[in-house]
Amino acid sequence: MAERITPRHVDYSRWYLDVIREAELAENAPVRGCMVIRPYGYTLWEAVRDGLDRRFKATGHVNAYFPLFIPMSFLQKEAEHVEGFSPELAIVTIGGGETLEEPLVVRPTSETIIGHTYSRWIRSYRDLPLLINQWANVVRWEMRTRPFLRTLEFLWQEGHTAHATAEEAIEETLRMLDVYADFAINDAAIPVIKGRKSHNEKFAGAVDSYTIEAMMGNGWALQSGTSHYLGENFARAFDIKYLDRDNVLQYCHTTSWGVSTRMVGAIVMVHGDDQGLRLPPVMAPIQAVIVPIWRGDADRAVVEPVAEQVERALLGAGIRAKLDRRDEVTPGFKFNDWEMRGVPVRVEIGPRDVQQGTVVLARRDLPGKEGKQAGISLDGVAAAVNDLLNEIQASLLRQATEHREANTTFGVRSYSEFREILETRGGFIRTHWAGSNEDEARIKEETKATIRCFPLDADEGEGVCFYTGARTRQVAIFARAY
Amino acid sequence: MAERITPRHVDYSRWYLDVIREAELAENAPVRGCMVIRPYGYTLWEAVRDGLDRRFKATGHVNAYFPLFIPMSFLQKEAEHVEGFSPELAIVTIGGGETLEEPLVVRPTSETIIGHTYSRWIRSYRDLPLLINQWANVVRWEMRTRPFLRTLEFLWQEGHTAHATAEEAIEETLRMLDVYADFAINDAAIPVIKGRKSHNEKFAGAVDSYTIEAMMGNGWALQSGTSHYLGENFARAFDIKYLDRDNVLQYCHTTSWGVSTRMVGAIVMVHGDDQGLRLPPVMAPIQAVIVPIWRGDADRAVVEPVAEQVERALLGAGIRAKLDRRDEVTPGFKFNDWEMRGVPVRVEIGPRDVQQGTVVLARRDLPGKEGKQAGISLDGVAAAVNDLLNEIQASLLRQATEHREANTTFGVRSYSEFREILETRGGFIRTHWAGSNEDEARIKEETKATIRCFPLDADEGEGVCFYTGARTRQVAIFARAY
Repeated sequence: MAERITPRHVDYSRWYLDVIREAELAENAPVRGCMVIRPYGYTLWEAVRDGLDRRFKATGHVNAYFPLFIPMSFLQKEAEHVEGFSPELAIVTIGGGETLEEPLVVRPTSETIIGHTYSRWIRSYRDLPLLINQWANVVRWEMRTRPFLRTLEFLWQEGHTAHATAEEAIEETLRMLDVYADFAINDAAIPVIKGRKSHNEKFAGAVDSYTIEAMMGNGWALQSGTSHYLGENFARAFDIKYLDRDNVLQYCHTTSWGVSTRMVGAIVMVHGDDQGLRLPPVMAPIQAVIVPIWRGDADRAVVEPVAEQVERALLGAGIRAKLDRRDEVTPGFKFNDWEMRGVPVRVEIGPRDVQQGTVVLARRDLPGKEGKQAGISLDGVAAAVNDLLNEIQASLLRQATEHREANTTFGVRSYSEFREILETRGGFIRTHWAGSNEDEARIKEETKATIRCFPLDADEGEGVCFYTGARTRQVAIFARAY
Repeated sequence: MAERITPRHVDYSRWYLDVIREAELAENAPVRGCMVIRPYGYTLWEAVRDGLDRRFKATGHVNAYFPLFIPMSFLQKEAEHVEGFSPELAIVTIGGGETLEEPLVVRPTSETIIGHTYSRWIRSYRDLPLLINQWANVVRWEMRTRPFLRTLEFLWQEGHTAHATAEEAIEETLRMLDVYADFAINDAAIPVIKGRKSHNEKFAGAVDSYTIEAMMGNGWALQSGTSHYLGENFARAFDIKYLDRDNVLQYCHTTSWGVSTRMVGAIVMVHGDDQGLRLPPVMAPIQAVIVPIWRGDADRAVVEPVAEQVERALLGAGIRAKLDRRDEVTPGFKFNDWEMRGVPVRVEIGPRDVQQGTVVLARRDLPGKEGKQAGISLDGVAAAVNDLLNEIQASLLRQATEHREANTTFGVRSYSEFREILETRGGFIRTHWAGSNEDEARIKEETKATIRCFPLDADEGEGVCFYTGARTRQVAIFARAY
């Protein structure tokens, strides 16, 4: 098990691929760059989907579905958009045995076809705001792919909203950024930083892009969700107009926002350790695994009914519990197996425990003896597991936050210091920045680090930009990123 | 509203399209044959999805996700399969600006790519049964399309399972047919008939296909879900083998089964009337709409708080309720509007009702005064609405069953009688059948009627085939179908 997982310090990329494989989250499909999401990985995605969908509906959004295929001409209507996406398109040229007159693009994102549709749905201010989300697959012809992080086809949600004013659209953009952060922090236990993207990193066609950025186990950044204020760009390209209260025709202001299967990769890389996955209880497909321990049939006759009783008690308390009944493997094998799969709590029951009317609980987030509690009474097992799940959820968030803080350099004075930190410590560099788009591009070329975001919570006040020497209030977070 | 819906007896096809449009379920997309599923229609699909997904999980299935793109060579491995699907394929020939070496098919169904994957996952009898479902979009290049019933792209679920023996695979095939029937009857209030497909109508590559067939409002049939026993066909094509308990390599027996967005079309056509939709309460996005009635601000001050109180009471009881606050339209307009959208229960509240501490309930499934109950006390409104929803659910199923029975001819003696019934009464003809595949094809050509299924519950005993004159125990249901 663990020996089939490369330690993180040896090769972090291999560690990631090993965990994805051993925990049976996903595998490469026979089509280059595509993946098969295996049941354990898909259940994690279902938890992402359900956690977000609930929040979308609570903030007044409804789901709909728009077509997979987009006429090529639609993409060409927004200049920046087509420029950004055209190198990445998959194109259907044959349908029903005939060459198509107009090739169809397999959607890389749906602003264009949804913009076209909204222009027909929206007539007056009474139709606004229009708050719609779609769960869908999209395709971007990426050259370098990695399961969950970057694949040709991926699953995501894309919200698309239309508003009467810029203020309302910006408010929506930031509201959905908050929704994403709330999900990431409270469900996925990922302490994301909310920020605005730099001009170089924003969505093709957006006025402003916002992001939630997370630090992975190796100190790299992962953009884990984005929310875009599109201004009137798509409204002008697709003629999305409304009659205002004074009967004047106005362009709408639109937004779009998305989170994808990439979030599953974030969960793996933020929480995983050299034993494999560590899953936050809110997301875990299995929250507690019960491992019965016996040698021979006499023991078994004593232990098995109690293990089943514990399973019933946990399931009855709404805990996603599983009794591991396999008899072709040892308890030790099972311990490692479920550790590798990231199950937050293990319940061990042996003959001596049964005699004493107790069980042993082991938590995944603390190693070895530190994470073990013996003598938990059978009567109280559901309550004890429940408490432990809450503790583990908080503990994983705390550990990830501490990891991020420990791997962030706050303020650098010069570009040489900047480069040295990147080469030695890595992690995030959070520092004043007054450079141009060209400066940012040059730094990217020279160091592979990009501006992940201008954090919204920046309270550093004025300072000196390490690159230009200019005084500025603007703070940027630089990092290497997936 | 209703005047914008063509009456069914005038033109049933136009009625269907009118209802889809006016109730805002879907609309044609800019790409030929594709549709945009609008929020109200998508919420219906979510109810289908949730009702089925719950049942799949309760019967031991898990979800996964396989790629949208399938290498052309995969389809060619199962001879019947490729023959059946190749005229309907959408093909990607360009990716990332380059012509692809091997064109990629946009999946029309996933037996091939899943078969390929299963051959790698399955090693021993311990890996069986493998019970996986996928929620996905698929594309079939259809020439004549109709929203929900037949579209180029549609949403569906496809279950794919692998088993050690034929018996177990057939058992699974029939179990999922039961799951479909249970959902259709108890959630969608559609009295489907379970049956086996004729050779001419079975899935390309299956040994046996089973179906749930429903009768639409015009007497036509709609195949509403299918479950296929694939034998060893795909196992041999994709080398899906396992080592049995005696260490002998065996082919697996596989199944597949699917229900699609077509089910939304079935709900429209089974229950709808000349006023529009009638939705079974279990599926309805809005189960009860509250329409306040006032003239002038004095009335409003009295009625509005009570309407809000009723909304809170209904929502609190878990009823999907909505208070219609629009003030730009009259109560009469609202009545028609919500009737057209098929909301099962309307709660009317006017000033006199408030005085008396009561409300009026109107049910969608019974017209006019017959469906109205006055004097429902405010205290008991949630309980009364709840009871009414249960009654309406049962009533819609009863009405649909009566409609089907009234439009089924049980037994015909000759082909001329068969043809006359088809021309005059239409509906289902349930009768003994001993014809060949060629006979069936000839009847289809001459009458457009097909064998919808050999019903599993046939208890007619032996009889005479109307077409061949032979004695047989086999009973078939013939009908025209969508």
